[in-house]
Amino acid sequence: MAKNKANRTKAHLPRGFADRSAGDIRRTAAMIDTIRGIYERWGFEHVETPFIEYADALGKFLPDADRPNEGVFAFQDDDEAWLSLRYDLTAPLARMVAENFDRLPKPYKSYRAGWVFRNEKPGPGRFRQFLQCDADIVGAASPIADAEICMMAAEAMDALGFHSGEYVVRVSTRALMDGLMDALAVPPGPQRLTVLRAVDKFDRLGAEGVGLLLTGGRKDESGDFTPGAGLAPDVAERLIEALGLTGQSASESPKYSNAARIDALANAGLSSEALDGAMETLSAITGALSATGFGEDKVRIDPSVVRGLEYYTGPVFEAELTFSVTAPDGSVQRFGSVGGGGRYDGLVGRFRSQDVPATGYSVGVSRMAAALAARMDEMPAQGPVIVTVMDREHTAEYQRLTAKLRAALNREGLSVPVEMYIGDSGMKAQLKYADRRNSPCVIIQGSDERAAGKVQIKDLEAGKRAAEEIDSREDWVAARPAQVEVEASVEAIVAAVRPILS
Amino acid sequence: MAKNKANRTKAHLPRGFADRSAGDIRRTAAMIDTIRGIYERWGFEHVETPFIEYADALGKFLPDADRPNEGVFAFQDDDEAWLSLRYDLTAPLARMVAENFDRLPKPYKSYRAGWVFRNEKPGPGRFRQFLQCDADIVGAASPIADAEICMMAAEAMDALGFHSGEYVVRVSTRALMDGLMDALAVPPGPQRLTVLRAVDKFDRLGAEGVGLLLTGGRKDESGDFTPGAGLAPDVAERLIEALGLTGQSASESPKYSNAARIDALANAGLSSEALDGAMETLSAITGALSATGFGEDKVRIDPSVVRGLEYYTGPVFEAELTFSVTAPDGSVQRFGSVGGGGRYDGLVGRFRSQDVPATGYSVGVSRMAAALAARMDEMPAQGPVIVTVMDREHTAEYQRLTAKLRAALNREGLSVPVEMYIGDSGMKAQLKYADRRNSPCVIIQGSDERAAGKVQIKDLEAGKRAAEEIDSREDWVAARPAQVEVEASVEAIVAAVRPILS
Repeated sequence: MAKNKANRTKAHLPRGFADRSAGDIRRTAAMIDTIRGIYERWGFEHVETPFIEYADALGKFLPDADRPNEGVFAFQDDDEAWLSLRYDLTAPLARMVAENFDRLPKPYKSYRAGWVFRNEKPGPGRFRQFLQCDADIVGAASPIADAEICMMAAEAMDALGFHSGEYVVRVSTRALMDGLMDALAVPPGPQRLTVLRAVDKFDRLGAEGVGLLLTGGRKDESGDFTPGAGLAPDVAERLIEALGLTGQSASESPKYSNAARIDALANAGLSSEALDGAMETLSAITGALSATGFGEDKVRIDPSVVRGLEYYTGPVFEAELTFSVTAPDGSVQRFGSVGGGGRYDGLVGRFRSQDVPATGYSVGVSRMAAALAARMDEMPAQGPVIVTVMDREHTAEYQRLTAKLRAALNREGLSVPVEMYIGDSGMKAQLKYADRRNSPCVIIQGSDERAAGKVQIKDLEAGKRAAEEIDSREDWVAARPAQVEVEASVEAIVAAVRPILS
Repeated sequence: MAKNKANRTKAHLPRGFADRSAGDIRRTAAMIDTIRGIYERWGFEHVETPFIEYADALGKFLPDADRPNEGVFAFQDDDEAWLSLRYDLTAPLARMVAENFDRLPKPYKSYRAGWVFRNEKPGPGRFRQFLQCDADIVGAASPIADAEICMMAAEAMDALGFHSGEYVVRVSTRALMDGLMDALAVPPGPQRLTVLRAVDKFDRLGAEGVGLLLTGGRKDESGDFTPGAGLAPDVAERLIEALGLTGQSASESPKYSNAARIDALANAGLSSEALDGAMETLSAITGALSATGFGEDKVRIDPSVVRGLEYYTGPVFEAELTFSVTAPDGSVQRFGSVGGGGRYDGLVGRFRSQDVPATGYSVGVSRMAAALAARMDEMPAQGPVIVTVMDREHTAEYQRLTAKLRAALNREGLSVPVEMYIGDSGMKAQLKYADRRNSPCVIIQGSDERAAGKVQIKDLEAGKRAAEEIDSREDWVAARPAQVEVEASVEAIVAAVRPILS
């Protein structure tokens, strides 16, 4: 039926959501399988939670929520209770562990991959639905558990094919900067946030730039001025010295050994209760790293790590890709952070009479997949062998041939789809269809071939190559390039198709 | 920190949602992989749509919605537009195809697996989030496309290990019952619905029971009376005859050949425009089935198929498991319908100036998985080899051993997880942990073993067997069952672990 335009529904997606192609799905699944393999090897068990939870069970821990409902998609159940789509995989895990606490082994090591949802302002490359792949240890208070998570994250990067120096897992602890600022008598409040943001920019600005941001402020190349944290110059200097950044420029990225970094912190002559705790934690992590042979090229103590989620209570981690890729148009693409996590000792305890120690790590699957894709050749899926339909009254015969050919090629271990064309169009459109489907070859049987007990097999790839070389239509017809005639038996067709597929 | 109970959040899930165990995830993934394999072999391409769409793009096609919002989870975006969680995978596919119509090959054959959501009253075994796996052909009007979908569905059942006679894909078309009722002058309206429901019950009640439901009504064994459709007895008899059900009891399930079923319809002496169209459609489907060698044991013409979704416009299919399983407690479990679908020529057309022919099939993954699980032995995941921590001050050594052992066992192709115990507890709790993790063996090194350069390897499975045979504690200690001492080298440990794993 014809409709006028006003009656039609518009076919589009809300902003921040996207369809996924076969190539994207395949690449992402392969990546998750690789990560899963590492997690399983380290003794983590697969477990999944549903997409919808009670809103109060998930809590409100998102940073920078620029929407009502704190960045979460929420709606009311028929009994008025508020439900939310999960915004990460950690809060639901905490609910699950609390609900099944007694029957789970402790420590409880688990992993999961799944979609999460953020009701935030979408933008270029910023989606409201994205994939995470998480691993968590619940019930282990030791910093060794945090170290294990970092090492496993690094091993997963290795397994994905990132080379040493192309990535780094950076580790700090929430207590470190707090302890340093306690020792330097920076009063709690917004000034501390400005200090954290300044330190966070070391990789881009170097010690000198950070020094300006810690004190009076900094004017960048474009002339924009960023106000400083207002520390006294000697206080800023002592902080930079304690962090081991003294005299470092942004271009010479700090490649201290982890032990040297700990020493720099220890020898800064600063002291506070929080700082002592932080030093103990980082030393234990460093010990675990070196016992297992993970150097600072893979897992690095880095006081500038700041993670946004509010539920972190101790060590925090950030996995970063350090290489960039130059696109064909000359633009340079950097990927930066592709994962992160930390210790969240209070999250399970929200449901119980006691806190329960817990630590975990989450891979941002889409960004990691984009980084892998930028370095990999596209591997298109194998298109189908297509049995064309020249004489519609012989459809049953084409169907029979299709079924037999599909079974035979599968039996021979040639993993190629086989289909009969099931549209209404003629031969020209069928060949166009085959081309769009990336088909390796089509099978054609008209009345002449049927009478002779033959079929034509047209190699589409070879045909394309030949078309680029043959100029005139006469030459083309004479050569019948890349087309062979064989007996109309399954055996003969399989024999002819095999070399085309290889 | 200790909390009083009133401050605690309750750890529970909304009704109709569930966590998933490793075994469930693994079994379901294997099942979907098998189905995917068949779909790909038939030339279908993987594609996925997001979980959230504009509510008007999905439309309202759900049957029996017992909640506001027509059974859909819906919420407003910040621009007031209504968004919905997808309630199936067909409506989003229609949106996707309409949005990308020009760039897609036609016919467009695609498949997808994913979670869908229904805001319905949950009940035992009735979830508000469940998995579907769909295959669809858009752009093919021919009944051969419907036949292909049914044959592919049957081939997937074969691939999953269901034997001939354990399942059947039943096919009818919406036009058939309409056409019969037109010919028998049953007026449009609620009476027709009662007729459809009566015919739908043939498998349970046989021709006699259906006859009662078509006429005056039927009293069941418990004495409950179901009112009838009020057809005149001769009209009911002609309908039963036309459907080929005459004289059939429920126990002898109708095993007509598809050709005989078509003949019964053709020879009933009834005629209407809709019926002529339905006969043509079913004949074409039967022709395609027999050309490809799919008999009525796999795909069966069955006029009693009625599908609830409102968007179907032509042939409808239902995949059914016909076997039942007796549980250990003696209860008999039947699985019934595990998939269904049909032709929905109007769904893509909602977005365009013209209708677009389309047909598809959806597997109810959870129910199919339950049926497979009921017949399969549970295959628990391989538990980890656990390096226990006897002397905490030597943790670094245990870590080093764990890392080396993990790498070595992986190198040797023994796919077993390896982990160091990272909790705070003593040896007894560590062994209990190993037991809960289904660990094949644990590695133990105390001060004596360290001094001698040895480790103990405890085979937990053999230990359990021995424990059932050894009575006294003295015998147990003397025998040290299932425990061996080997050199503390990775090579020696791998050599000792290998036979335990096999």
